[in-house]
Amino acid sequence: MADSKPLFSLDGNPVAAEALLRDVFGLVVDEVIRKGTSASEKVCEWKEPKELKQLLDLELRSQGESQEKILERCQAVIRYSVKTCHPHFFNQLFSGLDPHALAGRIVTESLNTSQYTYEIAPVFVLMEEEVLKKLRELVGWSSGDGVFCPGGSISNIYAVNLARYQRYPDCKRRGLRALPPLALFTSKECHYSIKKGAAFLGLGTDSVRVVKADERGKMIPEDLERQISLAEAEGAVPFLVSATSGTTVLGAFDPLEAIADVCQRHGLWMHVDAAWGGSVLLSQTHRHLLDGIQRADSVAWNPHKLLTTGLQCSALLLQDTSNLLKRCHGSQASYLFQQDKFYDVTLDTGDKVVQCGRRVDCLKLWLMWKAQGGQGLERRVDQDFALARYLVEEIKKREGFVLVMEPAWQAGESGLQRKAG
Amino acid sequence: MADSKPLFSLDGNPVAAEALLRDVFGLVVDEVIRKGTSASEKVCEWKEPKELKQLLDLELRSQGESQEKILERCQAVIRYSVKTCHPHFFNQLFSGLDPHALAGRIVTESLNTSQYTYEIAPVFVLMEEEVLKKLRELVGWSSGDGVFCPGGSISNIYAVNLARYQRYPDCKRRGLRALPPLALFTSKECHYSIKKGAAFLGLGTDSVRVVKADERGKMIPEDLERQISLAEAEGAVPFLVSATSGTTVLGAFDPLEAIADVCQRHGLWMHVDAAWGGSVLLSQTHRHLLDGIQRADSVAWNPHKLLTTGLQCSALLLQDTSNLLKRCHGSQASYLFQQDKFYDVTLDTGDKVVQCGRRVDCLKLWLMWKAQGGQGLERRVDQDFALARYLVEEIKKREGFVLVMEPAWQAGESGLQRKAG
Repeated sequence: MADSKPLFSLDGNPVAAEALLRDVFGLVVDEVIRKGTSASEKVCEWKEPKELKQLLDLELRSQGESQEKILERCQAVIRYSVKTCHPHFFNQLFSGLDPHALAGRIVTESLNTSQYTYEIAPVFVLMEEEVLKKLRELVGWSSGDGVFCPGGSISNIYAVNLARYQRYPDCKRRGLRALPPLALFTSKECHYSIKKGAAFLGLGTDSVRVVKADERGKMIPEDLERQISLAEAEGAVPFLVSATSGTTVLGAFDPLEAIADVCQRHGLWMHVDAAWGGSVLLSQTHRHLLDGIQRADSVAWNPHKLLTTGLQCSALLLQDTSNLLKRCHGSQASYLFQQDKFYDVTLDTGDKVVQCGRRVDCLKLWLMWKAQGGQGLERRVDQDFALARYLVEEIKKREGFVLVMEPAWQAGESGLQRKAG
Repeated sequence: MADSKPLFSLDGNPVAAEALLRDVFGLVVDEVIRKGTSASEKVCEWKEPKELKQLLDLELRSQGESQEKILERCQAVIRYSVKTCHPHFFNQLFSGLDPHALAGRIVTESLNTSQYTYEIAPVFVLMEEEVLKKLRELVGWSSGDGVFCPGGSISNIYAVNLARYQRYPDCKRRGLRALPPLALFTSKECHYSIKKGAAFLGLGTDSVRVVKADERGKMIPEDLERQISLAEAEGAVPFLVSATSGTTVLGAFDPLEAIADVCQRHGLWMHVDAAWGGSVLLSQTHRHLLDGIQRADSVAWNPHKLLTTGLQCSALLLQDTSNLLKRCHGSQASYLFQQDKFYDVTLDTGDKVVQCGRRVDCLKLWLMWKAQGGQGLERRVDQDFALARYLVEEIKKREGFVLVMEPAWQAGESGLQRKAG
């Protein structure tokens, strides 16, 4: 029958299209998965921008190109890209390649849907909830809320917006001019998204009060107290503290119990930016580094970092059970979130976020977890710590290297011990 | 040599890992690309949430599962997901499947990098700039700036933030309390992200002044004038108008020339939300619907809608050449954007956005464009219009159907003609 032809018969040749996809996949297996992860190959074939531009022939023209040419283009793209899956790639926090996560990403791309309603993403709406529930359990919460965000910065910014809305719901309608001046607190070692977020949300970077960190990069709770008093004396209303579990540069874990005490005393929203450190919660041996995280109001956790699920996989987790996410961000668009659907419309999670269309980010983590099990993932995290310790010992042994600082997690320190000390 | 083993030898069996990926890819070809695009198959095998949960067995456990089991899980995920590539899928604006775009997405996922610096994404930094340049040319700009965003909502919100910053740079540091009350303008048919954005940015939804639309859903420029006067009379400072090229529900194209005249008269930032209509610029026949777009300050354009590149592919384009994006959003994080790198650091585009890590969204569009050429993409857009006309004529002929409204683009209307009229 005529109308059962694949859609891309538009291009005249569905067999060729399928063949192209098979060829490209073969290329990915050979050049990325096999060679890209081999230590005997280069991490990157470096080219200066000018030369690379010529090599790639980037210009977009009127005429299309042959399948053969397109395959060559894919080859060139791979050849000159950095192999972030390479064992010698250390530049960023998301190195490595997990085949199950990649399988999940390929399925995600082929299904190409948006996470906003059950009718359009039935599997992924249920799956996202299950994955978030599991992450919340590891934080220590038996209930709560959450959502996957396009990166940890957006998760952090959402947290600040939620804290602001919870205290001043009127802000959503009337804006910041209706509010007293606000103040939020984070350490000088925090991720830069906190200041970016303050600017973006209209609070201004001046509203971010920078708390001192100790020599290891951990927030000093006594200085947090001091900064809160100072802000109040200047007429500002403190509303949020953002602690960091795994600072970007020094890998420091803020003392969460002591910070939670301060937040409790002053009635402040406690956010934990655990973008890279969150995955440590999987390890029975090392999770003490995040002791106190269960007292937070919100947690940002990016499994695309330590767990190598692939960019992007960034969960924002909330202890809240009052539908705060939807109340704060929702606008009840009637064309998308009809209330008379033939299923339970609380499954339509799209109004929890500021985005409209939202990528599916749960499948890669879910599939990897199913394959490895929590135990397998725990072994990986423990192995990461073992490798860090190995590196430290090697540095100490070798001439020409100087150990600038012992990793905090090897010195037996944790939030709890700090509090006791 | 021992260290040339692939990374996932951690899991004990690299051959099995590669075999799994091959199996999953075979599944994608058979179940999504072949069956999913066939009109003789179902768009969706619908299940109620409760039943679907049981069928999927979503729970994440301690024990891992066999490769065979993982393959079955992928099968189930695909089986119960909506086939957005199916010819009978009409629920959202991103239906269809382009094999070249999908090839680009698979390569993107396998390379797994972040768009923020040249050293980590040399190919994609240059490619993004080339793709944005091409999109700007279609808008009518020979220079400018831009960035891919996680969805059109974020693009729209960025535009509002940029307009605010351009007028009041002090806002970044001191926040909205240092500013007079602001007002922005959009039609009642606009996308809901404008109001969401106003709330998120701390302006409050009250700052959004809703302009009347005509019976076709197009903004009425005379009412825009009226709303601006009204806002000023109430003591607010107008700073931005968001026009829509292709409204979500009625598919209306706002009269951009007339709106540009108003913006020029009052010195307001003109943003065009062309998330779905932007791709019409590729068609010589229909691009008059966006006449006047070249006078905008910013344009949001999602090739993942009409051009089927796959979620997400959302460009924010700017006419600005003063580095406004980076000045507005940047924070010069010293650990990531070092100024003493051995290449031109203006290639490090990460500080143009509020995100830190950012997905690569340019390759799928670039590869599809290379394969189809501008001509091929133009034919597609024209075919979409032809199909819409076909639907209208069929509705008119058939009993039991009523045509509620003629599509605006078929009645020969355009921004220019409206202005002349």
